Amino acid sequence: MDLELLEQAARRRLDAAFYDYIAGGSEDEETLVDNAAAWSRMRLRPKVLRDVDRVDLSTTALGAPVASPIGVAPMAMQHRACEDGPVATARAAAATGSLLVFGLFGAGSAGGVAEVESTAPRWLQVYVLKDRARSAAAIARSVEEGYAALVLTVDVVRQGNRRRDARNRWVFLREGDEAEEDPNELFDRSLTFDDIAWFRERAGVPLVIKGVMRGDDAAACVDAGAAAVIVSNHGGRQLDGAAATADVLREVVEAVGDRGEVYVDGGIRRGQHVLKALALGARGVMLGRPVMWGLAAGGRLGAQAVLRGFQQELERAMALSGVRSVPEIGPDLLHERG
Amino acid sequence: MDLELLEQAARRRLDAAFYDYIAGGSEDEETLVDNAAAWSRMRLRPKVLRDVDRVDLSTTALGAPVASPIGVAPMAMQHRACEDGPVATARAAAATGSLLVFGLFGAGSAGGVAEVESTAPRWLQVYVLKDRARSAAAIARSVEEGYAALVLTVDVVRQGNRRRDARNRWVFLREGDEAEEDPNELFDRSLTFDDIAWFRERAGVPLVIKGVMRGDDAAACVDAGAAAVIVSNHGGRQLDGAAATADVLREVVEAVGDRGEVYVDGGIRRGQHVLKALALGARGVMLGRPVMWGLAAGGRLGAQAVLRGFQQELERAMALSGVRSVPEIGPDLLHERG
Amino acid sequence: MDLELLEQAARRRLDAAFYDYIAGGSEDEETLVDNAAAWSRMRLRPKVLRDVDRVDLSTTALGAPVASPIGVAPMAMQHRACEDGPVATARAAAATGSLLVFGLFGAGSAGGVAEVESTAPRWLQVYVLKDRARSAAAIARSVEEGYAALVLTVDVVRQGNRRRDARNRWVFLREGDEAEEDPNELFDRSLTFDDIAWFRERAGVPLVIKGVMRGDDAAACVDAGAAAVIVSNHGGRQLDGAAATADVLREVVEAVGDRGEVYVDGGIRRGQHVLKALALGARGVMLGRPVMWGLAAGGRLGAQAVLRGFQQELERAMALSGVRSVPEIGPDLLHERG
Amino acid sequence: MDLELLEQAARRRLDAAFYDYIAGGSEDEETLVDNAAAWSRMRLRPKVLRDVDRVDLSTTALGAPVASPIGVAPMAMQHRACEDGPVATARAAAATGSLLVFGLFGAGSAGGVAEVESTAPRWLQVYVLKDRARSAAAIARSVEEGYAALVLTVDVVRQGNRRRDARNRWVFLREGDEAEEDPNELFDRSLTFDDIAWFRERAGVPLVIKGVMRGDDAAACVDAGAAAVIVSNHGGRQLDGAAATADVLREVVEAVGDRGEVYVDGGIRRGQHVLKALALGARGVMLGRPVMWGLAAGGRLGAQAVLRGFQQELERAMALSGVRSVPEIGPDLLHERG
Repeated sequence: MDLELLEQAARRRLDAAFYDYIAGGSEDEETLVDNAAAWSRMRLRPKVLRDVDRVDLSTTALGAPVASPIGVAPMAMQHRACEDGPVATARAAAATGSLLVFGLFGAGSAGGVAEVESTAPRWLQVYVLKDRARSAAAIARSVEEGYAALVLTVDVVRQGNRRRDARNRWVFLREGDEAEEDPNELFDRSLTFDDIAWFRERAGVPLVIKGVMRGDDAAACVDAGAAAVIVSNHGGRQLDGAAATADVLREVVEAVGDRGEVYVDGGIRRGQHVLKALALGARGVMLGRPVMWGLAAGGRLGAQAVLRGFQQELERAMALSGVRSVPEIGPDLLHERG
Repeated sequence: MDLELLEQAARRRLDAAFYDYIAGGSEDEETLVDNAAAWSRMRLRPKVLRDVDRVDLSTTALGAPVASPIGVAPMAMQHRACEDGPVATARAAAATGSLLVFGLFGAGSAGGVAEVESTAPRWLQVYVLKDRARSAAAIARSVEEGYAALVLTVDVVRQGNRRRDARNRWVFLREGDEAEEDPNELFDRSLTFDDIAWFRERAGVPLVIKGVMRGDDAAACVDAGAAAVIVSNHGGRQLDGAAATADVLREVVEAVGDRGEVYVDGGIRRGQHVLKALALGARGVMLGRPVMWGLAAGGRLGAQAVLRGFQQELERAMALSGVRSVPEIGPDLLHERG
Repeated sequence: MDLELLEQAARRRLDAAFYDYIAGGSEDEETLVDNAAAWSRMRLRPKVLRDVDRVDLSTTALGAPVASPIGVAPMAMQHRACEDGPVATARAAAATGSLLVFGLFGAGSAGGVAEVESTAPRWLQVYVLKDRARSAAAIARSVEEGYAALVLTVDVVRQGNRRRDARNRWVFLREGDEAEEDPNELFDRSLTFDDIAWFRERAGVPLVIKGVMRGDDAAACVDAGAAAVIVSNHGGRQLDGAAATADVLREVVEAVGDRGEVYVDGGIRRGQHVLKALALGARGVMLGRPVMWGLAAGGRLGAQAVLRGFQQELERAMALSGVRSVPEIGPDLLHERG
Repeated sequence: MDLELLEQAARRRLDAAFYDYIAGGSEDEETLVDNAAAWSRMRLRPKVLRDVDRVDLSTTALGAPVASPIGVAPMAMQHRACEDGPVATARAAAATGSLLVFGLFGAGSAGGVAEVESTAPRWLQVYVLKDRARSAAAIARSVEEGYAALVLTVDVVRQGNRRRDARNRWVFLREGDEAEEDPNELFDRSLTFDDIAWFRERAGVPLVIKGVMRGDDAAACVDAGAAAVIVSNHGGRQLDGAAATADVLREVVEAVGDRGEVYVDGGIRRGQHVLKALALGARGVMLGRPVMWGLAAGGRLGAQAVLRGFQQELERAMALSGVRSVPEIGPDLLHERG
């Protein structure tokens, strides 16, 4: 799998403005760029002579077995990348044993995703609506569909200032899109840590908070009952100038300790980046844009090629670093520059 | 508001040499570039789950209420950007509730600015002339016009070495400009901290010193009776090689403590930069070139769009950082890179 | 010798895909680039007034005299650069008194290399095959041919992910190449420190471990009986994201202490880089690509010009740094940036 | 004075290979580039309100008054830049009250330079020849001509590896040049600190050592009787990879203390760089290439314009930094980046 070639193929197939919508970040795209740069800045200290004939990528996500620590991040507008996009993604995740975080935007339905059979867990991501009753209804229905965890994305209390979209005058929603509602109007912007309990009760499944960028916030999340946090700056699409996720991951891992799990997304483009994230203490990583490029370039098979390709790259990076299994990945793999 | 598009529009409208005069800095423009780069180098640690449904930008400047911590820096030659430039700027400031620092260059008159009604304060910026009597007269007349503070700019003891202007052979002053006087001859270059008292007595309003770049100087200013200092390197137009204002702001804030207020200008191009300045302890920021581009591109409405745009960007950046009001902005929002 | 001109000449002569195979690294080529950049990042503190009329480059490698600390790294596919490539390289090494590490790939034969007369030592590099008996046989036969040490390369437990090759669809092996076997199938990927003793017994000559990137691994190698380690990331061709060899060299030198010798390769393109490596504590350095460019551009004489050129550059760099002999090169030659 | 325009004018007038000879450095020109970059990396902390109506640039060099701390470095081949080059340079130095270090290359004569009247001191720079008697004779004759100090350049124990020259196949010496002798053969490469005394006795004037890059060497120089050292890496023309002079200046100043004076050259292109050098503790700076560009572009008047221009830039930089005289320049003007 050659991710850059795949992205180029996707770019040729997609409407230019839609490509920009997916590829772009907010304002000066400093955080978008820094997300990827931060993984590249880190250097590995590979071990040798460790018998890596077989390398085991398997791990668990909130207790459920997954084939690897590489999952799929929630993404809007997958149907624009390929018809039946969310289902295609779900199938790709199932075929590769990958954790899928399915994103329920606004108040839409989880569609056919729940029907896709998978041995790997699926989590449901929701935004919290001002109309709490609609949120509760959507959550209830979706959990019935077997989602293993509920992910609350908490970093969209305002819509990011995406200049590419403004310059493209991209109309955010089209016929067939989930809802023609303004996110700034729709989403509950008054959410606090106290609301976590409310969701935890209704969800009946573990709660995961997505968009955490600080140790103190992460600790407050687990104190309030969250089972995990996802370190994320929304792929550089919300607050421009926010730190790269790689640069705050260690702080969050230390703050959470063994009271919860920590995931991370943002700028992960190679298996070696996954290895670095795990060396910093992440339980797993989530891929957004790479899966979108796969979907756009080749539908389900494209998304599957991306996930499989990342697994192969991680396997190789682990072997070349002298680690045979996920638990063997530790912070000593990272080189501290003098 | 898309500041780069606005600047491009301004550039198309302005005489090329005048554009260079505004956009340029001294010598190698190291400080000009570093001013902006320094804000970009800093990274934010946004908070989540803080109930940011409503974000309050209001604050005070030397005790007077302003709609936001974003003010207008004193700028020469506004009439070249648009006819009636100073008055247009004053109206834009009034319409947005922004602090206006009006610059009285040489020994000119404050013109129609004083007639513009505003609930926000206006400060009068002056250079100190060798002819102290003319300075005193200008100050006295202007304070009668209701300026709430007197700003002494102290970093023009020599004219900066602006190579763009020299290469453009730009004739500094034209018919209609304030005065055909050489700043190197006109301005008092012997000013010391002892003179602050002299101005304080005559001004009858609080004194603000603009152009301070060190903690010890800032402390000496407040010791000598200044109510505030503005951390400024004159937008990179004077001493090339001077530190970026963002890089010395914290030192100045710590030296002044609660004995005065600290403002900052230089390289602020986004709402997130304003947030960073406030996180470093600034009371407010001042915009120069962005307002000039607004003026040149769209007159009063252009300048107003710039100020309103910055307010919106700051509101968004605050919300996305989990702060609901200016006093909640603290140093923990800044990420210290390992 | 002008290495860049030589590389350009080689590039013109070589098949484009083969050039890429030699010049390229894995994935994003971060480590490939960083290897060279790391030597350039370091700065020297030259001494003066030290009587450098004569500078002595001679040193020893595992006790055997060599004309300089500059040796030849093992390289595959030398016959593609010039006919009779390995023998040409051996002659160039002999003519310049340079240590030659000859690479025996897979289970091939050491060919005519052993017949080349040389006062300088030759070491035999092997990969460890799954078929241990074949390894043992090759080793036994080769040691009979007079190799002074056996070098085990341990960083190819997986084939690196070389995108240039994939994009070139470069067929790795052609008629006349050593073996049409898949390295991933051929090589023993289960090797551990315990196996070092096995090789040591059979080799009858000192054992050198190539591909070590950490102090703890280097210490484990000498504990297990290795006489030396070569700090190497395989020229950036294996684990992309691995630290530059220059950045881990000091750690390895400190861990090994006086229990063994430490060599280094990767990104060494100038005599001053050799000087820096020795200042960090390396016993010697090994050149790969530069020798290949010499071979491709001018056969034996080209390779010889490269080795001679490096010796001259090292002589000049030592003289200009005020050191008269290899033992005088110490860590105080390196400038620690504030 | 616009140094870049002047260099462009010089480049148009000069033979391309000669331009490269002057402008270039050794090998990869890392040190050439870093010399200038190091001054730019430093940032100033300007003071305000210090009464800088008059700024006094005057200082002394080894006790002799000079108009400013800006002197002329010794340069070979000045007659190639303009006819009668050395005399033109001497006149420019005299007209601006600048210290002149006149370079006597090989065993040539100091020519008409000594006849140029000047109130500022002139120093004589020599290389030490293998034929010590010729050195002694040249020194004796030259000192009779009134040179106030003897400068020994000690960093040419080998000729630097200048790739531009090699690529240009530039014939180093032409008819009319001083001598057709190979510097590698001509110069004494066995010089040590013990020889300093030998020169000190014969010179009868203070001895200055040029090419010192370390504190320990500088201390050894003054211990051996040198009155001053010049921190220099020969403008990046000798050991590529050597530290920038700006980066080692402080160490040398601290090692010398009050036992001698410290000068610096290399990469100084603006008055603000001179200010930084003095803030680091240099007694003065020396300009090489800028003077050569002036000579080539405009002969004596061109060189004079350069020296005058630097003085004006230094005057402005001092005024804008709140210092009124050279002794007031201290290390607190430099900003230490967090």
